[in-house]
Amino acid sequence: MSLAERVIACCRELALCTEEPGRTTRTFLSPPMREVHRLLGQWMESLGVRVTVDAAGNLRGLHGNPRAPRLLIGSHLDTVPDAGAFDGVLGVVLGIAMIESRPRMAVEVVGFSEEEGVRFGLPFIGSRALAGTLDRAALDRVADAIRAFGLDPAEIPAARLARETVAHLEFHIEQGPVLESLGLPLGVVDAIAGQSRFLLTFEGRANHAGTTPMSLRRDALAAAAEWIARVESMANRTAGLVATVGSLDVAPNAGNVIPGRVRASLDVRHGCDRQRQVAAQSLLAVAAEICARRGIALTHETRLDQPAVIMNAELVAMLTQDVEHRMTSGAGHDAMILAPHVPSIMLFLRSPGGISHHPGESVLPEDVEAAIDAGRRFIERLEAKHV
Amino acid sequence: MSLAERVIACCRELALCTEEPGRTTRTFLSPPMREVHRLLGQWMESLGVRVTVDAAGNLRGLHGNPRAPRLLIGSHLDTVPDAGAFDGVLGVVLGIAMIESRPRMAVEVVGFSEEEGVRFGLPFIGSRALAGTLDRAALDRVADAIRAFGLDPAEIPAARLARETVAHLEFHIEQGPVLESLGLPLGVVDAIAGQSRFLLTFEGRANHAGTTPMSLRRDALAAAAEWIARVESMANRTAGLVATVGSLDVAPNAGNVIPGRVRASLDVRHGCDRQRQVAAQSLLAVAAEICARRGIALTHETRLDQPAVIMNAELVAMLTQDVEHRMTSGAGHDAMILAPHVPSIMLFLRSPGGISHHPGESVLPEDVEAAIDAGRRFIERLEAKHV
Repeated sequence: MSLAERVIACCRELALCTEEPGRTTRTFLSPPMREVHRLLGQWMESLGVRVTVDAAGNLRGLHGNPRAPRLLIGSHLDTVPDAGAFDGVLGVVLGIAMIESRPRMAVEVVGFSEEEGVRFGLPFIGSRALAGTLDRAALDRVADAIRAFGLDPAEIPAARLARETVAHLEFHIEQGPVLESLGLPLGVVDAIAGQSRFLLTFEGRANHAGTTPMSLRRDALAAAAEWIARVESMANRTAGLVATVGSLDVAPNAGNVIPGRVRASLDVRHGCDRQRQVAAQSLLAVAAEICARRGIALTHETRLDQPAVIMNAELVAMLTQDVEHRMTSGAGHDAMILAPHVPSIMLFLRSPGGISHHPGESVLPEDVEAAIDAGRRFIERLEAKHV
Repeated sequence: MSLAERVIACCRELALCTEEPGRTTRTFLSPPMREVHRLLGQWMESLGVRVTVDAAGNLRGLHGNPRAPRLLIGSHLDTVPDAGAFDGVLGVVLGIAMIESRPRMAVEVVGFSEEEGVRFGLPFIGSRALAGTLDRAALDRVADAIRAFGLDPAEIPAARLARETVAHLEFHIEQGPVLESLGLPLGVVDAIAGQSRFLLTFEGRANHAGTTPMSLRRDALAAAAEWIARVESMANRTAGLVATVGSLDVAPNAGNVIPGRVRASLDVRHGCDRQRQVAAQSLLAVAAEICARRGIALTHETRLDQPAVIMNAELVAMLTQDVEHRMTSGAGHDAMILAPHVPSIMLFLRSPGGISHHPGESVLPEDVEAAIDAGRRFIERLEAKHV
């Protein structure tokens, strides 16, 4: 079995560690996480790696001299409900695969305990512990779960990133269709898009669908529909912008009643914060203009305004010597949390069918092989600088 | 107290007969219906009217000679949940008010037991008993409720419209904003619009809102929104057409997931069946065209295809001698059930604010007075012909 095949087989084996028989669901410090730690720990120990679990529940394995400059390779071990086998886990297993070739430089593999935010609605618990940005309020919410797993929340400060860490690499499946549509196995992530999220409320007047002539209606759904078309067309003509109305709740939502109220989400992402903010503001302005014309009251709440995170330019340059395609990640990743604290870079593997957060999630063996090769050459370039 | 004021006061008193304290909810043969029968029965008996309750639970009062040509005046006594005081009830109380002036011709007042379809999802139980169109399946579903009210379902055939009935008049609040917008108290209904109802399913592909570029999306909600705008614009430019998308269900309905599936209702109404059917078919064709262009699978189910009901032309002519404005009713009424069996006509009273099916439902005393006057003159014209 090739190393790439072993990587895939390991991910598939870990997918059997689950809270729900028949599907893969593994949240922060849930019982099956112990089995994941045991399986990956065994593999790392067989390679001479020192394995620990820190107080945030992150699995950590150190290859090489603890005092030497080290490369951190990490991703997360938790999953969404009914997940696939590769989101997160693949990045950890590829980290261990990097140690298989006995790199000269120190390499620390981290399996983050939590990224998806499923158990507590608090994403990135694992990587925030390394970044030192797990605040008091978050800690209070997760302390009992940490104790129940046999760990001591008081020791979380010791989970901080070692000062010897010179770079951080995260392998991850793309979770989107771009690489596949370009016929490419790999892409270098040079930025993680910023996100704006809003909740808009269109308040019209519910009325009888039979007795209210068109000219006397204040139909909240017709207003929202006009706006959704404008959201899509603005995103279509703005390079790098994605804008999505993903949820829509109509009241009273009866076939024979004109909709009186619609609540709609808006999610806007771009690698450039200024372009994202300009787009978000003009989409809100478009909604206001449509509603004013129709006699609909419009309100909105800002739910998220998260800036873009730019990956380290020097690491991007190193990795693009082997992997030409550069791209923006539209999704958040642990690398986003660590990038302000250590030079960080991500390598995306093609997602067949763009499928992720779904049992149909997969990777191609040849793409895993390409990722292993690119990772090795990246480490060699880092060694040339740091060893 | 004027007769109009007594009519309104009576409707308000009947609104206190309810299954739910604090709001008006009175379904088919529910306990408060007995009190309604008692109060209206007392009033009618004080006028010398013979009062009965037929086997379908309809309250019936006959003024005048049982063998003479009679005018039927009816509407319904049941309500929607949390109803107003006038929908249905006003038409029955105005029927009794017509008897106050001791017409020369026989007048039968009917308070239909059921029109709204709340209790069994079966509308028009009362008027269908008079029309003789209450089928076996419907009867089986309501038989226990009829027995529980102390009536005998086997006697329903005797509830049929008397052969002496020469005309049927239904007074009803408009339940819409048209008369108010025209500044008119009354309108003669010359047709009850036909209705087409459909359920459309737009099946695209759910995907990550951050990682899926606009060009690679198959967004079911964006497709539905484009179509909703077209539904509205076609109805806007077609006289007499109303078309409504009243309910919309989005899956998975999460802010950060591109909608994979949307289910949307479509309700199309017009006084002319051909125009309604042409409009409905072209709206389905528009949806198909939008979906084909976007790679969205579209299916639809027909939920209702109910023809328009034309009111009796001679009665329309009689009533429009006093009430000039003619209109189409966008909602169904008992008159729709009886029209195929007896010459029928409806008189609408202005609905302030267009409000109905809501505790805020009201009528203006001067409009009730105008309706009483118009009703009396209508009866005089009928008497000239039949007595």
